[in-house]
Parts: sequence; C-alpha cells; structure tokens
Amino acid sequence: MTTNISRRSTLKKLGALGLTGAAVPFTAGAVTCESKDKVTWNQSYDIICVGSGFTGLAAAIEAKRKGANSILVIEKMPYCGGNGVINAGQGCFANTPLQHKLGIKDSAELMVSDQMKAGRGIANKALLTHIANLGPYAFKMTQECGAVYLDFCQQPGGHSAPRSHQVVERSGAGIIRPMLAECEKLGIEVRTRVKFDDLVFDDDQRVVGIKVTEGHYHDRPKLGKAAAYRATKGVVMATGGFTQNLRLRMAQDPTLTDEVVSTNAPGATGDGLVSMMKAGANPVHLAHIQSGPWASPDEGGFGYAPNYAIFNFPHSIAIDRMTGRRFMNELGDRKERADAELERRDAKGNPLPAILLTSKAHSSLNQHSLDNVLEAKIGWEFESLEAVAKHFDIPYQPLKQQVEEWNRYVKAGKDSQFGKPMDLVKDKVMQAPFSVIRLWPKVHYCMGGVQIDTKAQVLCAQTGEPIKGLYAGGEVAGGVHGVSRLGGCSIPDCLAMGITAARSIMTA
Amino acid sequence: MTTNISRRSTLKKLGALGLTGAAVPFTAGAVTCESKDKVTWNQSYDIICVGSGFTGLAAAIEAKRKGANSILVIEKMPYCGGNGVINAGQGCFANTPLQHKLGIKDSAELMVSDQMKAGRGIANKALLTHIANLGPYAFKMTQECGAVYLDFCQQPGGHSAPRSHQVVERSGAGIIRPMLAECEKLGIEVRTRVKFDDLVFDDDQRVVGIKVTEGHYHDRPKLGKAAAYRATKGVVMATGGFTQNLRLRMAQDPTLTDEVVSTNAPGATGDGLVSMMKAGANPVHLAHIQSGPWASPDEGGFGYAPNYAIFNFPHSIAIDRMTGRRFMNELGDRKERADAELERRDAKGNPLPAILLTSKAHSSLNQHSLDNVLEAKIGWEFESLEAVAKHFDIPYQPLKQQVEEWNRYVKAGKDSQFGKPMDLVKDKVMQAPFSVIRLWPKVHYCMGGVQIDTKAQVLCAQTGEPIKGLYAGGEVAGGVHGVSRLGGCSIPDCLAMGITAARSIMTA
Repeated sequence: MTTNISRRSTLKKLGALGLTGAAVPFTAGAVTCESKDKVTWNQSYDIICVGSGFTGLAAAIEAKRKGANSILVIEKMPYCGGNGVINAGQGCFANTPLQHKLGIKDSAELMVSDQMKAGRGIANKALLTHIANLGPYAFKMTQECGAVYLDFCQQPGGHSAPRSHQVVERSGAGIIRPMLAECEKLGIEVRTRVKFDDLVFDDDQRVVGIKVTEGHYHDRPKLGKAAAYRATKGVVMATGGFTQNLRLRMAQDPTLTDEVVSTNAPGATGDGLVSMMKAGANPVHLAHIQSGPWASPDEGGFGYAPNYAIFNFPHSIAIDRMTGRRFMNELGDRKERADAELERRDAKGNPLPAILLTSKAHSSLNQHSLDNVLEAKIGWEFESLEAVAKHFDIPYQPLKQQVEEWNRYVKAGKDSQFGKPMDLVKDKVMQAPFSVIRLWPKVHYCMGGVQIDTKAQVLCAQTGEPIKGLYAGGEVAGGVHGVSRLGGCSIPDCLAMGITAARSIMTA
Repeated sequence: MTTNISRRSTLKKLGALGLTGAAVPFTAGAVTCESKDKVTWNQSYDIICVGSGFTGLAAAIEAKRKGANSILVIEKMPYCGGNGVINAGQGCFANTPLQHKLGIKDSAELMVSDQMKAGRGIANKALLTHIANLGPYAFKMTQECGAVYLDFCQQPGGHSAPRSHQVVERSGAGIIRPMLAECEKLGIEVRTRVKFDDLVFDDDQRVVGIKVTEGHYHDRPKLGKAAAYRATKGVVMATGGFTQNLRLRMAQDPTLTDEVVSTNAPGATGDGLVSMMKAGANPVHLAHIQSGPWASPDEGGFGYAPNYAIFNFPHSIAIDRMTGRRFMNELGDRKERADAELERRDAKGNPLPAILLTSKAHSSLNQHSLDNVLEAKIGWEFESLEAVAKHFDIPYQPLKQQVEEWNRYVKAGKDSQFGKPMDLVKDKVMQAPFSVIRLWPKVHYCMGGVQIDTKAQVLCAQTGEPIKGLYAGGEVAGGVHGVSRLGGCSIPDCLAMGITAARSIMTA
C-alpha cells in the first residue's frame, strides 16, 4: 500500500505520451520490394513490432539492448498499450527478489505445474517453462524502465504460492508508461493511428515488411492512407486477442453474443491473427475463450471490481443468493469459478449474480481498492449480516450458518467445504461490518492464436516449419495456456515472448 | 439381423470399383486460367468434389440430380470412401419410415436438442437443424442408391430415442459401395490416386479450380505428376479430418502422441483444411478432437469392438477392475465416457482398461458382432461371474453386489446409480454366461474445421462473407457439433452438407 495513483490519472498521463497521432510525411528514397507483389516501401526499419502492449514494447526494448539500429512500434489506436493499460497490472513471476525478501518459497517448476493443471492437459509445457524461466529477467526489465511495485505478493486463484507482483498504480499502465518512456529514451519510434493491414513476403516466402494504413481512425476505418514499411530483420506480431470481434468470437462460442461484456480494449479485433492464418500460420485453441471470474455486472469494461476481488478472494466467501451458501473455491482457477458463477440463477433461471462477502477489517487492508468500488457504487457496506441478507434477499439462517462454518475452517486452517488454499487467510475470521460486491464473469482473454515455438517463431500449418521473418508473442499466440490461463500470467507471457522474439531476430 | 456380409468381403468389393488408379492422359484443348497464377487447365468440369467419402459422393449424386453436366470426384488414396468405409455404417436420422414402422417417436427437434446438449453450449443449432431436417431425404438417397438397412434402430450414447439406422454390412462400405455404383451409372467421374494440392483463384477471388498431383502414392508422396483442373461452377471440399496428422493434432492436444491409436483412415491428414485456412477460411473448434469410447485396446484401428459395444452398451455394465463397480453412464455422450474410461488406472496410475460385461443371452441377439469379437480374440466368454472376476483380477464381492444392484435397476426401469436411459434395457436382467470386451478410447473425429453456413459455403475469417466458388461439408467443416459429436451423427452431417453444397452450386 505504498502510493495511491489512480488508474484514471495514469491513463491521462499516457495521453501525454500519445506521440504522432496522424500520418507523418514519408522519408525520401523509398525502395521497392523484391516480392511478386511489387511493394514500394515508404519506410525501412530493422524490426517492426505490430502492437504497443507488453509484447511489442518488450520486443522493441530488448532488440535495442541487443544492438538493433532502427525499430518501429505501430499502434492502430490513438493511444498506446492495448489491453496492457486496462488490466490490474499484476504479473506472476517466480523466484524474484521480492519473494525472497518476503520468505516466499516458489520456483518456475511450481508455477508451471499450477499452469499445466489449469490448462487441463493441453497447455504447452515447453513454452510455459521458457516463459517462467525468463520471468525474473522480464520483471527486472520493467523495474529498470521505472515500474514500481507494491511491497507484497498476492495469490490469484489457481496459484499455489503468492507470486503476483502488482505495480503501485494497480493498473498495467504503471508498466506500459515507463516502458514507453524507455522507448523514447532509446530512440525507438512509436507511432499511433498506424493500422497493420497485411504481411509482405518476398519470393523466398520470407516476411520482409508490412502494409499499413496511416492516419487510421478506429471508428472511421475508411479514412487514412495506405503505406508499406520494410523490416529487414523481422516482424513481431504483438496484436493481442479477438474478444472485441463479435463475429470471430461467436464463431468459436455462439453464447458470447453482444450481450456479453468484454473487459478488453476496443482494438482487440484479431486482425493480426487473421492475416497470419492467411499467411499459413497454424491456429491453435481458438475455441478457448476465457471469462474473468472477478468482474462485476454493475460496471462496464474491466472496471474496479477485479482489483478488489483478487485482493479479497482469499479471505472472502462467495454466496449464492438463493441458498445463502458458498458454491465454489474462491481461489479456484478462472474457468472453474466463471462456470460456477454463471450457474447462479433465480427460480426462473434468470441470472442472479452471487455476492462476495468480506469483513471490512480485511478489505480495508487495501483501502485504495475498497474506496474505488464504494465510490463507483459497485460495492456496498453493511453493519451486520442481517443487513446483507435483507439487501440481497438472501435467506438469513443458512447465511449465518455458512459464515459460522467458514470461521471454523479459518480457525482450523483447512477449508473442508471446497478445499480452498488457506495460506493467506491465517486468522482472518469473518465478522461485521462487511463490504460486498456482486460477481458475474466478463469475456477477458483468448487462449487461442497462432502456434509459436520457444523462439517466438510462427509455425506454418502445412510444414510445421517457422515462417521466415515472422515472430509472435502474447495473446495473439495460442496454445500456451491450454483450456484456462491463470490470473497474472499474461504479463509474464507477453514480456518473455516479446524479449524472446527480439533475441531470436538479433541472433538469426 | 437380416444378412451377414462381412466387412472384409465388402472392402474387397470396393477394390473392384477401384477405378482408374494411375494418372490418366489429359484431354486436348487445355484452357488457361484468368488468374494471376496463370494456371493451365488440364481438365475442365462443372463441379469438382475433393474426397470420395459420404460428403463428396452425396454432393456428386445430388449435383447430377439437379442437372450438372460434368462432375469429377477425386480421391488421393488408391481406394474410395475415406473414413466412410471403415466405420460402423450407422447413421442417426429422425422421422424415417423405419422409425414409424417400429413405433419410435422422434423428431428433428429432439435429435438437435440431444446434439446441442453434447455440444456443451457451443454447437451450431442452425447447422444441426438444417442437417436433421434433410435427414430423411439423405437416408432415402442412400436407399435409392442401393444401401440396405437392418430392420431395427439402435440408440447410441447421448441419444434420447433409438434413431441409428445401420446397413446390413455393419460397415459404412455398405453405403459407399452403392453410392459409387450410382456415380458410375450417372456418368460421374471418380478418380483415385489424384491428390488435391491447392485451390486456384481468379482475380475476382473466386475459386475456379484446383491443383492436383496425379498418380499419387500416399507412402511415396514425391511420385506423381502435377496437373490443374478447372471447376466452372464450384469446388466441394470433402476432405475429412486430421487425426492422422500427428503434428496438427498434437498442436491442438499435446496428449495425442503417436502412442494414441486413431480409428481413422490414413488419408485423414488435413491437407484440405490447411489449404482452405491459407485461402482465408475461418477455422472453428480445431481444439476439439474426439475419442471414441467404444474402442478396444486389443485390436488396431477402428476394429470390431465399436459395433459390438454400441449394440450392447444399453444392457451392459462397464466395470472398473480395481473396485468391481460401475463408473459411468454407459449411454453417456462420447466425451463423458471417453474421459471416464481414461481414468481407469491401477494403483501406480498405469492404464487398467475397464471391462464391458454383458449377458451372452443379450450379446447373442447380435450374433454377427459377438462372433467377430470372439474370432478376433478381443472378446471373451465366461460361464460364471467368478470366472470373470478371476480372469480380470476384479474383487469378486463388490462385482457381485454391483451386478445385483444393476439388476434391481433393470427391474425398476430406472438407473439410480448413473441415470442411464433404460428404454432399450426392458427386462434384460444380467446373468451368466457372460461375454466381455475391454474398453479404451481411440482418437476418432475432429469436431473442428472451416466455418460454413447452411448453404455449405465456406466463410472468410476476415470478412465473414462466403469465399466464392468454395463449398465444404462433413468432418472438414467445423463448429457443427461443438465440444462432442454424438455417435451416428457424422453420416447424416456428411450426406446433408454434400447434398446442400450441390444444391447451392446448382442454384448459384
């Protein structure tokens, strides 16, 4: 609980780093591509990163560290960061100095084993191990850029040790912003409103550049001017997921209609994924789209609930309003919890979101998050359990018995009801007064994307070989996490695979 | 139980219909394509069907019925039929004359509702409804070609009515063979050893033909001669699944190593799928690969066990050899049962395949299937329950109690243990002597493939619009069945979507 920078003020600061928003004049001396498409290059770089989230920025910074001369990062939106700036800014890293200081025993192996379990048999152990091993380096890179972390670790659902490192801003913007500043310092060119349109191949089937639209407006896609940029060493696709493309996501899951809210940035439309598939990349696990179990139906987008819920899940209980009883392990993995939350229904089968019940004595240990949900009016305070029951129309006696039962588990250090890990609960007995939010999942993350190897090379569906000159990492890459990604595991994935792409390009 | 034609003799007859096995001389007057690829056509047809399974043949026959002049069906293997000739020849159709005669109440709606349940929320209701509605027409088409069906209906797992219609040969060859004869009669050209290599587009992005290798040998892929065939009206991709492509299937499910047996034909390598993805088709549900719960670890390939098991599952019990107890609803859907079977392990965690226990009084009602499993030595006969327990090292007392318990359910007409539908069980009390097979799942079917609409048009990932001139149906199309396809539902899917593709082409 060191500082108290709000997410909104951080987002405003990102605006100041908005960089060149409109099309810029081209440099002279454009060269012509050797490909059959006869592209005329408007610009030429060593490396182009498509997307300005964690992956793209980590790739750019690492490439510079490894000696690349000219690096371009493009972003189709008017602001940088993609989903990176609208998440909770929590990354799970094993074996960090902070963990050592706090006496937390952890290892890459343990983290991978948790992830493999959530992946339900189809996660990619080689990629997860590669990412976990790079974790401490990636974490340090963000600190070297200027990211500042809270002085405690959290334990999101499915993790068997406290290993989530959160920036003081409690928003990924607290990582993106210093990384953008580092890019500026290193002379990496970052340009917004430049939309990736397609890959350019030479006759040797190597990716040698990209076609773009400069001066792109997301809500007026016909505006802008076509251009082509050459990438002499490689292109890093860091374009994220596709939960904001209603057609693509409904093709995989027809239940994800426009009535289902997504936590993602509006730019998460899957254009990069589609282009790579057309270039022969192998799509893996597109059917697995994750919903976040920490969301509130009382606010739009990602909102304030996730930060509040993730901090409080360990010592809170989730209550079904029909029965007054718990219905899940509040530290289960995301899929397990989201599925359970979606089953909370009234007698007619209509959604009846569960409540997350927390002692104020414990939620106020993270006053910042508590204030946020109360100020946003998506959280409530109650002086007594009777008041909670009355407000949410929950049968009082079962609820009272449930709280008493839970408190017996707290004292015993063992949850005999749902087997929840009690490491972080300790003596946190539940008692009035209470704070409460409602829970209902929101679409959050695409486990699927193009197949990559541990060099971040994009693999061809037909041959299994890498597509030359093409690299990808982060959410646009698929198969890493299997059926269900654990919380806090996207940031380390993005950073590590961005770093890996840069290293592969610079040693190719 | 009308006739008794063995699968092997049927396969031999298919050989006689092997048609032109090697490359044939080209006709004169080859035309040149207008596409940027400047393809020179060696042949020209109205319609080309790629693949000679149920989908390709149904498309060809229906196209002829609707007035197409020249139709080519190509098959890369030296024999026709693909997976169509090595399955049990069982198709689920609702509302057929046979069902009416047997007094079975059924409807397309009921069948779709069963399929949607197995699809676990992500099956495509519009496509399933379209297919179920076309069922009686498709079924009649096979009869008009000469397929002869048994005079009873079976009820595979997950179906809420007996609706599986099986040909007397108990093999899909009993459908493929008459369909091939019909093709010959109608003047449809069917050529084997012609491998599809890629689609050819014109400058308007319409599919106008295909590139092939003539004189193809599956085990010597470098042999053969390149050619190109024009399709003036349309190309129907009927190329099946990809379970025989180890690399593609392991990209989706790393547990499907080369140690896991596939029931599929060796040609099921996904070439058609890969080409269509590269042409911009939208891949759907590739991660969902199904294992069949009716397979035996004691024989290779599809084998004899499935026919035996599907007939006997209703009145049999599956027994865990460690406990002597049932462990699943023997009429659950395929995924439910395959998952449960894979969990049967010894004390060290090694696979310990369950047994399927059946009274010989009941298994001998299908003497043909019983003889097959006994002759192939993948089935056993026992005079007493003690003998079963001794042979398979099962604790006798729990086994005996389980059989007694099951018999109480039979008498009550209600399975209080696993809620199995008892419609077909009636008074079939379990008693000695017994027949037994072992159960272990085999990889069987790809739920995933390219996205299609109810006109069998292949949809583009980028635009959502149909790719002009391109149609697909059967296993290469994805998203129809969701997470788990019900048994007997591939044949109606293949036939209906083949028919649909032909109708769409002929009315385009």
